[in-house]
Amino acid sequence: MTLTIGVDVGGTKVLGGVVTPDGEVLTTVRRATPDDDSGQTAVVIAEVVAALVDAYPGVEAVGVGAAGWIDADRSTVMFAPNVAWRDEPLRDRIADKVGLPVVVENDGNTAAWAEFRFGAARGVSEVLLITVGTGIGGGIIADGKLFRGAYGVAGEFGHVRFVPGGLPCGCGRRGCFEQYCSGRALVREARALAEADPHRAARLLRLAGGQVDAIQGPQITQAAGEGDPAAIEAFGVIAQWLGQGLADLVSIWDPGLIVVGGGVAESGDLLIAPAREAYVAALGPRITLPVARIRAAELGNEAGLIGAADLARLR
Amino acid sequence: MTLTIGVDVGGTKVLGGVVTPDGEVLTTVRRATPDDDSGQTAVVIAEVVAALVDAYPGVEAVGVGAAGWIDADRSTVMFAPNVAWRDEPLRDRIADKVGLPVVVENDGNTAAWAEFRFGAARGVSEVLLITVGTGIGGGIIADGKLFRGAYGVAGEFGHVRFVPGGLPCGCGRRGCFEQYCSGRALVREARALAEADPHRAARLLRLAGGQVDAIQGPQITQAAGEGDPAAIEAFGVIAQWLGQGLADLVSIWDPGLIVVGGGVAESGDLLIAPAREAYVAALGPRITLPVARIRAAELGNEAGLIGAADLARLR
Amino acid sequence: MTLTIGVDVGGTKVLGGVVTPDGEVLTTVRRATPDDDSGQTAVVIAEVVAALVDAYPGVEAVGVGAAGWIDADRSTVMFAPNVAWRDEPLRDRIADKVGLPVVVENDGNTAAWAEFRFGAARGVSEVLLITVGTGIGGGIIADGKLFRGAYGVAGEFGHVRFVPGGLPCGCGRRGCFEQYCSGRALVREARALAEADPHRAARLLRLAGGQVDAIQGPQITQAAGEGDPAAIEAFGVIAQWLGQGLADLVSIWDPGLIVVGGGVAESGDLLIAPAREAYVAALGPRITLPVARIRAAELGNEAGLIGAADLARLR
Amino acid sequence: MTLTIGVDVGGTKVLGGVVTPDGEVLTTVRRATPDDDSGQTAVVIAEVVAALVDAYPGVEAVGVGAAGWIDADRSTVMFAPNVAWRDEPLRDRIADKVGLPVVVENDGNTAAWAEFRFGAARGVSEVLLITVGTGIGGGIIADGKLFRGAYGVAGEFGHVRFVPGGLPCGCGRRGCFEQYCSGRALVREARALAEADPHRAARLLRLAGGQVDAIQGPQITQAAGEGDPAAIEAFGVIAQWLGQGLADLVSIWDPGLIVVGGGVAESGDLLIAPAREAYVAALGPRITLPVARIRAAELGNEAGLIGAADLARLR
Repeated sequence: MTLTIGVDVGGTKVLGGVVTPDGEVLTTVRRATPDDDSGQTAVVIAEVVAALVDAYPGVEAVGVGAAGWIDADRSTVMFAPNVAWRDEPLRDRIADKVGLPVVVENDGNTAAWAEFRFGAARGVSEVLLITVGTGIGGGIIADGKLFRGAYGVAGEFGHVRFVPGGLPCGCGRRGCFEQYCSGRALVREARALAEADPHRAARLLRLAGGQVDAIQGPQITQAAGEGDPAAIEAFGVIAQWLGQGLADLVSIWDPGLIVVGGGVAESGDLLIAPAREAYVAALGPRITLPVARIRAAELGNEAGLIGAADLARLR
Repeated sequence: MTLTIGVDVGGTKVLGGVVTPDGEVLTTVRRATPDDDSGQTAVVIAEVVAALVDAYPGVEAVGVGAAGWIDADRSTVMFAPNVAWRDEPLRDRIADKVGLPVVVENDGNTAAWAEFRFGAARGVSEVLLITVGTGIGGGIIADGKLFRGAYGVAGEFGHVRFVPGGLPCGCGRRGCFEQYCSGRALVREARALAEADPHRAARLLRLAGGQVDAIQGPQITQAAGEGDPAAIEAFGVIAQWLGQGLADLVSIWDPGLIVVGGGVAESGDLLIAPAREAYVAALGPRITLPVARIRAAELGNEAGLIGAADLARLR
Repeated sequence: MTLTIGVDVGGTKVLGGVVTPDGEVLTTVRRATPDDDSGQTAVVIAEVVAALVDAYPGVEAVGVGAAGWIDADRSTVMFAPNVAWRDEPLRDRIADKVGLPVVVENDGNTAAWAEFRFGAARGVSEVLLITVGTGIGGGIIADGKLFRGAYGVAGEFGHVRFVPGGLPCGCGRRGCFEQYCSGRALVREARALAEADPHRAARLLRLAGGQVDAIQGPQITQAAGEGDPAAIEAFGVIAQWLGQGLADLVSIWDPGLIVVGGGVAESGDLLIAPAREAYVAALGPRITLPVARIRAAELGNEAGLIGAADLARLR
Repeated sequence: MTLTIGVDVGGTKVLGGVVTPDGEVLTTVRRATPDDDSGQTAVVIAEVVAALVDAYPGVEAVGVGAAGWIDADRSTVMFAPNVAWRDEPLRDRIADKVGLPVVVENDGNTAAWAEFRFGAARGVSEVLLITVGTGIGGGIIADGKLFRGAYGVAGEFGHVRFVPGGLPCGCGRRGCFEQYCSGRALVREARALAEADPHRAARLLRLAGGQVDAIQGPQITQAAGEGDPAAIEAFGVIAQWLGQGLADLVSIWDPGLIVVGGGVAESGDLLIAPAREAYVAALGPRITLPVARIRAAELGNEAGLIGAADLARLR
């Protein structure tokens, strides 16, 4: 049995695991992502890999998934939003340290691949994955293959402009999708609703110690789950944007299935049920034809490492 | 030499031609599209084909391009905006009449295929075609193949929502891209500019007989070409939307080349030059990576029939 | 009994009448507005006045209401949208011809004054009038007096920006209120709805001879009155904007009463009933305090001349 | 010489002063606003008044300015955003405690009155005051008198809708002016600009300890004053909205002068200079007529108490 290692490099943690050809995760190792030090992050990745190799000496390759723009060779991180990488030759840097073949891939792509191979999108050849977390990520399966675009950076759904002259985005533009549909947007909506009508947000405010400005994502999820009307409405607002965005992707891409993942989507039906309604409404006449279903991601926060490991196997 | 026939079915005319394997059009036949009578349109298509077969008896297949949603079998027009087709079995209906193999394809797809094979996109494997005419059409080449999506209707760029709560669209939704970037939008902008400042629109108004409400597209193109400031600005406004839309498609698709065609784009640099500027501005930080160039379509209004004929050959 | 003359100068007709101190119109004279000839318009106004003086020789003064910006002296039309007046000394020009004292006033102001004195706003000291016709007009009563602002041009509600980057307006700006709430907006909405779903607009389309592009305002009013769902929805869309606009004016002005007049409003409850609902929704928490009611104008298209005549009496 | 007391009740402090008929402030007393306890706030106001009476026993009346909706009798606070008052009979409650006549007035109105009587708007009879602070406040002088509207709550400029479907507001609606032009909006813009391009925001980030999320208003003002490009741009963005809002108020109200005050405006030309440019652009053709100038407020954060004291004198 061939084993490979997958590593998911996030803004706060580096999570690695040994993965079987069936997508099973045999063991994981987790380390904090170093602050502001790109060289140091490669060291931590190598340490995670070394620990996994110690446990499973027979591993044959390493796949690394990271947020950012990866070049078409899957060797260099051209730009990363959360880590101080600029034209970082990550593949070679890690390969030198660990003595194994390495591939580097965008983390939206690794998650999409994992869901396609082992999760919610098994058996569907045209798939879009969208992850709703702090921001928005994405990955594309076209004709049963990972679609990377001409320059390796397809699937950047989060920075499609949704609102002309809209909210400023950290990318320097205005009105980007992820300003309206993300954990940050959820918090903004919930705080405004709690300020406008504290009675409707009673449960949510209690969880936040009575302070509107202390409301955070996990409290919104919990309060909504317990029936807090304001928290439910906050989910409903971002679900509207999500449903519209998915309908737009259908106009462009016409996938067979859309998988929704990411931290905010892990609230389950709080997000996806109203997003489905908004999606149907936004499809307009397109609804009369066969159209992509929406399904929740199945692999949770291990999707990234599972997909990275599998892509390393297939390199 | 194998010859095939391509037919482009538009809202006002049916244009057919005999095409060589090199994309050369040997002869064409044109007929008016019948009003409101779907059966009649199939008859006209068959007559056009028959006339072409008379001229070139050796033709081996027929490709038909039409606006609308074509099913994945390329046999049935599920919905067409300009013709009264609903679930029309167009392939079989024509094949019965002409006694040749027939394929039916969306007209944005046929045009994209023609530009990829013989026009502006030769040799590029990831291509988006967008046509700006009365409305917006599109077609996609992915990995050197026509990309049709899971259900055959990918590339419907014109009904992506660009403005929340925006202008009403004939599709029943609001804010669709083609309400902001199309011949109709060009006329709306030019009329408003002429009303606001008739002096700046002097040349344009002269072409329209002095009446703001008589301004139409061809006059705007002519006036802009002659330097009329209002007409140039009207092109600039829709070019802004176009550039933004292309940047959004880059975020999603990351093509190697974008080809811009359609009647409004035939004004040449009046549209494409300012659209390029808007595109660069809208790309934001994405501009620091390799990114798709924008090129004008090369095959004009024969692109549709050339592509249809070639797809029939490769069926 | 003192009689005065009021004249309402519109884009298509000049309507004059002799008016009693109680606001009763004793007789009227109507003439077509000359095209593109400002001097000629003053001649026509003088002819209308002369005909009325013939009938009632004892009239003591003349009030003229016209669209446009009138100076603080009420003598000069600084700018008029429908007539070719620029810094036109209209008061003196007419006074010279008719040998009576003349005052010139904005037509929104004259209508507001008429409704305040003899119509829907009798006895209310803080009133806003808004007229919804081809465009939007307005007039203000503050503390029981006509409020003209510091430079004579208060109450230009139609060019408040409602939508950033919105529809181009003939005034040279974008997103003006009257682009969204006017007869023209009603036609735009109805046409789009009829195009999207001809079945829902069956009655409306029949009135328009089956042609979407032939739909005009009166047909929409008639079809809506007969229950056509698309026509009713078109009214609903512009009523939404109207209700929002009135709520915004409440935030700014806090009137005791809002009177809605103009050609589109003469459809009665088709516009005003849904506008009231939208107004309540748009007021948000402001609804918990006393707030202006909305009432239909009572004096119809004679409001302008009645108000002009009364202002001449009180000059 | 008649002396009166003015008290300005803000969200964080209660500031009282003894004021001469010339608007001179002889002494002030400041206390913290109690949290969440309306009865307690009236006690603190009474204590402030008592301390001022001790110093100037001859004072003859008390004016209290507070954010919120005050009834037409100027006795009851119907709703206050920062203090837990609902239908609070503030006038009588304070009068009982201090044994002097009391008037209660909205704090935007008191500031407008002060600027009209003693500050930037002396001698102008049609004035709009707009304050840009945490939110937006306003006051109106019409015909040389304080304009309170039919129900006492005119001049609530901050909740005019500026963006359909825009940012959620604590008032329960979306797109309110103060979501786009306020201290909070300034911080939002500055943070996004610093995130997008830390180099352009180098000085600002240094003041904020290098943390984007630690950026606050005073740092933006300081950095902009020192030439930080991102901080200057953040001011520019909210100045755009301000200029547009003032142009809209001109269309409605046509004042002779607009006075801009409030904490954000105290940055001086950082806000007002670009707002003037935006105002001129937004006026469009209206600029060809006489139009209100924009002037900075002169009385700073004592405007509220000065105006309240003067209104008490004139009660």
